[in-house]
Amino acid sequence: MTAADRLAALGLALPTAPVPLAAYVPAVRTGSLVFTSGQLPLVDGALAVTGVVGEEAGAPSWPGGPPLVDPDAARELARTAALNALAVVAAALAGAGAEGGAAALERVVRVVKLVGYVASAPGFTGQPRVVDGASALLGEVLGDAGRHARSAVGVAALPLGAPVEVELVVEVA
Amino acid sequence: MTAADRLAALGLALPTAPVPLAAYVPAVRTGSLVFTSGQLPLVDGALAVTGVVGEEAGAPSWPGGPPLVDPDAARELARTAALNALAVVAAALAGAGAEGGAAALERVVRVVKLVGYVASAPGFTGQPRVVDGASALLGEVLGDAGRHARSAVGVAALPLGAPVEVELVVEVA
Amino acid sequence: MTAADRLAALGLALPTAPVPLAAYVPAVRTGSLVFTSGQLPLVDGALAVTGVVGEEAGAPSWPGGPPLVDPDAARELARTAALNALAVVAAALAGAGAEGGAAALERVVRVVKLVGYVASAPGFTGQPRVVDGASALLGEVLGDAGRHARSAVGVAALPLGAPVEVELVVEVA
Repeated sequence: MTAADRLAALGLALPTAPVPLAAYVPAVRTGSLVFTSGQLPLVDGALAVTGVVGEEAGAPSWPGGPPLVDPDAARELARTAALNALAVVAAALAGAGAEGGAAALERVVRVVKLVGYVASAPGFTGQPRVVDGASALLGEVLGDAGRHARSAVGVAALPLGAPVEVELVVEVA
Repeated sequence: MTAADRLAALGLALPTAPVPLAAYVPAVRTGSLVFTSGQLPLVDGALAVTGVVGEEAGAPSWPGGPPLVDPDAARELARTAALNALAVVAAALAGAGAEGGAAALERVVRVVKLVGYVASAPGFTGQPRVVDGASALLGEVLGDAGRHARSAVGVAALPLGAPVEVELVVEVA
Repeated sequence: MTAADRLAALGLALPTAPVPLAAYVPAVRTGSLVFTSGQLPLVDGALAVTGVVGEEAGAPSWPGGPPLVDPDAARELARTAALNALAVVAAALAGAGAEGGAAALERVVRVVKLVGYVASAPGFTGQPRVVDGASALLGEVLGDAGRHARSAVGVAALPLGAPVEVELVVEVA
């Protein structure tokens, strides 16, 4: 079963690789490794939810900010960010300018490392549960090749107010 | 003098490699590099101390949270996290499922990079002193092969409320 | 046009590679990759500005701390940190103990990855604008070889109270 098959079975389509927010590129290949830029849970170029993740329902993310993001909602956002990261890897494998598409993911030998940054309210320590959304998506799409080393970290704030950001190092053929 | 000799001289034993908290693996080897997952200062699967690191003795880590963790105590925790990271590297070198043991560390050519995340109270800027606990342990166990590049960062919160998290990239033979 | 030429045209000189704050080294080469330590915007060994970055002019970075750092000022600091990172890469290429100098940068094949950590006030989400200072400098000095993948993250605090920290992975010949 290919990654493209698994995506279809999950009802997922690989999105267009998000455009960098500034003076950098979505991913760089060096030898057999691809390093991605940090990916936000953008859908069609926009964030559906902003804020920091915490348990206290309804409390503001910061003074005057949006309400805290529920950990389960953040888990879904991590999944979306991971899908964007796969799109970026696929585009890098297909070569400069091309969009790649799911077929390019057949050249992924192994996801080596995932770092999941979770914008976190003081005292929120459930980062592993949130980042599991990203880890699970990689396994569902790539099978054993999706099994990776991982760091989950709670940070103060992320670009555009994103609740999560995911970056990958991937070994490719 | 081998890494195993140095560990014995330090009165340290390589612990069992901690089990991942979720859907990932402790370490991945790609070519001559091993990337570890972020390691917490777990001892027998539990954290002896939780909270964020700060100078103000007795103040809470967050509203209703445990007291701030003293920087010197955090330095010891960074040492423990680094020992866990070495256990993870040893297990990866010994192959899937095996425990590795200190002898496997003879195949470490060089620790390439250490990232030390320190859960930090507002205004705490002593991350280098804390992460030095991890850096020193690597030198004591691995000698010159333990000399690494490093980033020390103060973050909002870490998994399970851990005060520190350490990840490694290691070159292996 | 060489990197040394471009530095001269920018009116910049490669600084002396900053000395590590503790028990680690400025950079490690493994195969064709150089991993740098996290670089602060040190000039002659000191930080001109400390604090966290935020929009609210004049508010303290933390209780009793220095005023918030303006995002545009932080962008300049990110540029300085990136220049220090290039100095560290040059020194690593020139070999142990040597200072490298800009000529060594001709051996940079590609900047692979930049991680920019921005010490951020609650609700500050402009990390990309800040880290662009680092990204732009790499392009100005290295041309196409300076185009990199990137993660920008807002953190609680950084060593010595630095507003920004920059680390690189670089492919070298």
